[in-house]
Amino acid sequence: MDEIADRFAGRRVLITGGLGFIGSNLARRLVSVDARVLLVDSLIPSYGGNLFNVRDIEHRLRINIVDMRDTHGIAYLVQGQDYIFNLAGQVSHLDSVEDPLTDLEINCRAQVSLLEACRRRNRQAPIVFASTRQLYGRPRYVPVDEAHPAAPVDPNGINKMAGERYHILYSELHGLPACSLRLTNTYGPRMRVCDARQTFIGWWFRQILESGEIPVYGDGKQLRDLNFVDDVTDAFLLAATESRARGQIYNLGGSPVSLGELAQLIVDVNGRGTTKLVPFPAERKAIDIRDYYGSYEKIRTELGWQPRTSLREGLALTIEYYRQNRLHYW
Amino acid sequence: MDEIADRFAGRRVLITGGLGFIGSNLARRLVSVDARVLLVDSLIPSYGGNLFNVRDIEHRLRINIVDMRDTHGIAYLVQGQDYIFNLAGQVSHLDSVEDPLTDLEINCRAQVSLLEACRRRNRQAPIVFASTRQLYGRPRYVPVDEAHPAAPVDPNGINKMAGERYHILYSELHGLPACSLRLTNTYGPRMRVCDARQTFIGWWFRQILESGEIPVYGDGKQLRDLNFVDDVTDAFLLAATESRARGQIYNLGGSPVSLGELAQLIVDVNGRGTTKLVPFPAERKAIDIRDYYGSYEKIRTELGWQPRTSLREGLALTIEYYRQNRLHYW
Repeated sequence: MDEIADRFAGRRVLITGGLGFIGSNLARRLVSVDARVLLVDSLIPSYGGNLFNVRDIEHRLRINIVDMRDTHGIAYLVQGQDYIFNLAGQVSHLDSVEDPLTDLEINCRAQVSLLEACRRRNRQAPIVFASTRQLYGRPRYVPVDEAHPAAPVDPNGINKMAGERYHILYSELHGLPACSLRLTNTYGPRMRVCDARQTFIGWWFRQILESGEIPVYGDGKQLRDLNFVDDVTDAFLLAATESRARGQIYNLGGSPVSLGELAQLIVDVNGRGTTKLVPFPAERKAIDIRDYYGSYEKIRTELGWQPRTSLREGLALTIEYYRQNRLHYW
Repeated sequence: MDEIADRFAGRRVLITGGLGFIGSNLARRLVSVDARVLLVDSLIPSYGGNLFNVRDIEHRLRINIVDMRDTHGIAYLVQGQDYIFNLAGQVSHLDSVEDPLTDLEINCRAQVSLLEACRRRNRQAPIVFASTRQLYGRPRYVPVDEAHPAAPVDPNGINKMAGERYHILYSELHGLPACSLRLTNTYGPRMRVCDARQTFIGWWFRQILESGEIPVYGDGKQLRDLNFVDDVTDAFLLAATESRARGQIYNLGGSPVSLGELAQLIVDVNGRGTTKLVPFPAERKAIDIRDYYGSYEKIRTELGWQPRTSLREGLALTIEYYRQNRLHYW
């Protein structure tokens, strides 16, 4: 996919949530082809932004600390950008249940501010929005395709659904070249692993390296699909540069695996450790979506994307990363 | 339906948007059976709230002027209510395109505040949310049923979609007895008729009485369905009292009629006047949804609701109302 990244050489690229997991991996790809990268991040504690994610390339990009809710700041920063990767967000489902208004302001209201700013000041730059499979809620069928009804099971899902729809609407009404990728579970180096508030798998990486025991909720038979972060950044780069993506929504996705199998695979790749079934905590059971895996047929046929990294390979790269850098993520 | 209204005798009922078109008609029904009615309204100019709508029954209810965005005020007022009819909203589609953030704060953010207040202070009161067919966007098929995908064509549709989903989510997650009615074009006495910002039909009533000429956009062949306001208040009363409505979404709807036929029927009922085809203004064409009519089969079979008022009868009652009261609505 390096010919895709090459398209960004010398171009001005804004990444919101740029110090976070996926944003920083995207930044690293873009810096490697000499794009002019501007990272925007709020650095709200516990949201996932981490300066260590780009420490070794800090001198090759610009970092602007600002909250997406800062309407004037964001309106200034979108000007003159050639591409906008819009990844900033509150990403904890449990937090959104306890504090839906903060989630709404970041994932819904601030998205409208960003799009309004682009409408007034930059109608050229392609915008790729990081959406989520969470907006489908509990699948009525699998694999879930883009036509599956949206029925979010938590405020985060509702706000992301609205935020995504705004991107598509601004494409239709105001001609902004915006599109949306519905991400499934993304994993890899630089993800937040210090607790389980955002993702279960990040927490598992910490557990395998720390206690050696991975806790699996319920019977471990729930199906999920996962994407390694490099495959996800491929999709962002493609979606930004392929004109047929404008106004479109694409699922990412991968091969289904049960959580029990996944936990065991992590143990195998790590070379030691165990897995343990534990009862579902009530507050997690309430928003659990049971089996999920997505169809990525649309992005495969339209943009030529597919995951390239095997689960075993991705897990090995990730575990190795945290083995070396745990100090900065625990 | 008076046995339905009777269920509210002596009960405390909060109506948000209570000075507006549907809210005030609902208030009148409830006052007639001696419910203890509290109307909440912001009286934002041009939104539709009009003190004249309840002037003759003012001494039989309470009016509290407060904006839905006033989190603390709303949290106080929901306490101790037996029923909540949640009709407050920004309702102009065109305004939402120009000022999406105001629409978002009222139709999305303030809805979460209200639901959070109920979650903390009143988990008993049934809540009926006034949603809209607008969230379907351009129909993929007609009649549109509740399973039709949501694809709003303006910010108002996105915010109402999110606001509705929050009601259903709070029913599922927190046990609030909330449900949602997706209204189609509602018409009748006390609607806003001074311009076309909210509804075309209100503007038509003014035009037929003032200039005698009804302007119809495009070729006049677009299909719509309409409900007379008394039929809509029936649906609200039923949805609040039938326990099987909890957590449910229901379309209202009626028989399809073309806009050209509807305009001609208004002329006929009025006894004089003409209709005139005029080109679509560009900003309206952009958010026009072409043919729409809804299926109300779900609410008919589950709650026993159906429209009782013929179009001719409803139009006659409406025109007569504005003939007598135009002073208060022009």
